[in-house]
Amino acid sequence: MSTAAAYAMSAPDGSFEKVTVERRALGPDDVLIDIKYTGICHSDIHTARDEWGGAQYPCVPGHEIAGIVAAVGPEVRKYQVGDRVGVGCLVNSCGKCEPCLAGEEQYCATGATWTYNSPVAESVQPGGYTIGGYSTQIVVGESFVVAIPEGIGLDVAAPLLCAGITLYSPLRHWNAGPGKKVAIIGMGGLGHVGVKIAAALGAEVTVLSQSLRKRDDGLRMGASHYYATSDRETFRQLRGRFDLIINTVSADLPIDHYLRLLALDGTLVILGLPENPMRVTGRHLAAYRRSLAGSMIGGIAQTQEMLNFCASHGIGAEIELISADEIDSAYERVVASDVQYRFVIDTVSI
Amino acid sequence: MSTAAAYAMSAPDGSFEKVTVERRALGPDDVLIDIKYTGICHSDIHTARDEWGGAQYPCVPGHEIAGIVAAVGPEVRKYQVGDRVGVGCLVNSCGKCEPCLAGEEQYCATGATWTYNSPVAESVQPGGYTIGGYSTQIVVGESFVVAIPEGIGLDVAAPLLCAGITLYSPLRHWNAGPGKKVAIIGMGGLGHVGVKIAAALGAEVTVLSQSLRKRDDGLRMGASHYYATSDRETFRQLRGRFDLIINTVSADLPIDHYLRLLALDGTLVILGLPENPMRVTGRHLAAYRRSLAGSMIGGIAQTQEMLNFCASHGIGAEIELISADEIDSAYERVVASDVQYRFVIDTVSI
Repeated sequence: MSTAAAYAMSAPDGSFEKVTVERRALGPDDVLIDIKYTGICHSDIHTARDEWGGAQYPCVPGHEIAGIVAAVGPEVRKYQVGDRVGVGCLVNSCGKCEPCLAGEEQYCATGATWTYNSPVAESVQPGGYTIGGYSTQIVVGESFVVAIPEGIGLDVAAPLLCAGITLYSPLRHWNAGPGKKVAIIGMGGLGHVGVKIAAALGAEVTVLSQSLRKRDDGLRMGASHYYATSDRETFRQLRGRFDLIINTVSADLPIDHYLRLLALDGTLVILGLPENPMRVTGRHLAAYRRSLAGSMIGGIAQTQEMLNFCASHGIGAEIELISADEIDSAYERVVASDVQYRFVIDTVSI
Repeated sequence: MSTAAAYAMSAPDGSFEKVTVERRALGPDDVLIDIKYTGICHSDIHTARDEWGGAQYPCVPGHEIAGIVAAVGPEVRKYQVGDRVGVGCLVNSCGKCEPCLAGEEQYCATGATWTYNSPVAESVQPGGYTIGGYSTQIVVGESFVVAIPEGIGLDVAAPLLCAGITLYSPLRHWNAGPGKKVAIIGMGGLGHVGVKIAAALGAEVTVLSQSLRKRDDGLRMGASHYYATSDRETFRQLRGRFDLIINTVSADLPIDHYLRLLALDGTLVILGLPENPMRVTGRHLAAYRRSLAGSMIGGIAQTQEMLNFCASHGIGAEIELISADEIDSAYERVVASDVQYRFVIDTVSI
């Protein structure tokens, strides 16, 4: 057992305060990581404020973790002290079910162990639930640690561990690439990374955003087109246009309107989880053999693939670096969609 | 111009009566078909009763047509007098758009010409709309005529022209075959053909029907399992089971319940068009990267492929043969789901 400094909420309506957390003793396959940077994901906010239910306190969120290996267990093969590494949303899974064997640990049939607020045996994690990355150190089994290649800053790499893989995985799964027309709904923490990755994959990228406010950024990041969804003309003009639409917005959207923007065999993938059920009209699916699908982060092997891809294409998240005492105000700004484009905590300040 | 006998409704609340219709003069690429059998599809009823709006009267439905070539235009290459042929839901399309060039004429970007109640130039079809197969003859361009192989009766082949391709196309598109678990929702005119085709493709087939009433038939047709959806235990027991679910039921179903029966990367395809929008919960899609999709009949080339496949596997629809004066009562029985499994009109009686 070791201790680490962390920032935690002690109640849903509280604010972040510095605490000391316990990290498990290094097991044979474990890696102890000195966390350098941790991104702030909207899921952190939902959990810390118990908006999804089931939050455990003290609550230390954070699953966009980038750091340096500080120690390794005796059976660790892939990493050594000093390596640049990352940890994303997952820290364990059963390893035996069909999804795990397919390298899709995020869909583990018995339920993956998430990086924070996830139940684990008391022997594995003091308190019986996982403690996330708003902290100076973390211990993770090497199978759930990924290497961050040279040539990509740890600060801008951190958000790739969740936002990056969340976009990369569906873009790859639904074959975004040359000759494909891809739309990204939403130009936030997820969306902006999606624009960069989709463009780097060779797709023709269109941003569908509420307004044209971030248009220049979108075009700079690789989009060829940028439309405001507040303009009804957008939906007339783009009907039947896209092979793939990735929806990064959690708010309730008029899904039917977006389905009609899909070409033959096109797919609309939702990443954010709207609060209410979506209303889907059958004929908009049948008309062009369209699909409405969901996707959730990505597996560990694909997360490594994504980091390698991003490093080789010079892709990092666009970030605002903050100190730990700014987490509360950062949360307010995320909720107000006032961040360009991801907050990252510099753990030197913890 | 020629004339043919037909059965028509003259008003939405009317009954079928014998009429004489005009068929266009044989063009260079046209085939004149002596219709032998025409299946009754639920779409016929929706149209004849103007339940979808836009019905033209007199209304002659029928798009499950099997017959014998009676004459061919001078430039017809594929067919000659005496050939066994079929006509399905489509009689024309633009031939130039992306879907048409991909052989998916049913998704023609400018709108395909349907076999009945579809607007056409007055010069092409007297009255300016198409007249369907409850008739003794029809004239169709050879590109929209398919060959019915020897070894399959024209009577049991007729329903394949709509019901058969409606099931075959999504089963093929979503790779039903050995090692795949496929569920068919509904054991009616569409569903029973789906069971036969999916089983012949090598998939493990499960029927999900309201009750176990048709269980013996389902197993005889090739299903390995048969469950009643009226039993809530069914939904617990089958969670995460299927790679592909084909929904042949038009009634409003609790789509979320069925989505949860899908395995990783599974797809639920709707064929019937429910009256109301479906309510779809995002997390049921995201949880296993599931898809909800729609599909509409199939292209002409694939319709031919389907007929060849059915002939080589001894697959025909299970039918109740009726005379034309029984159409009204047959409609009542279709609406009451009281048909095993498709009514087919013997046109000798017209």
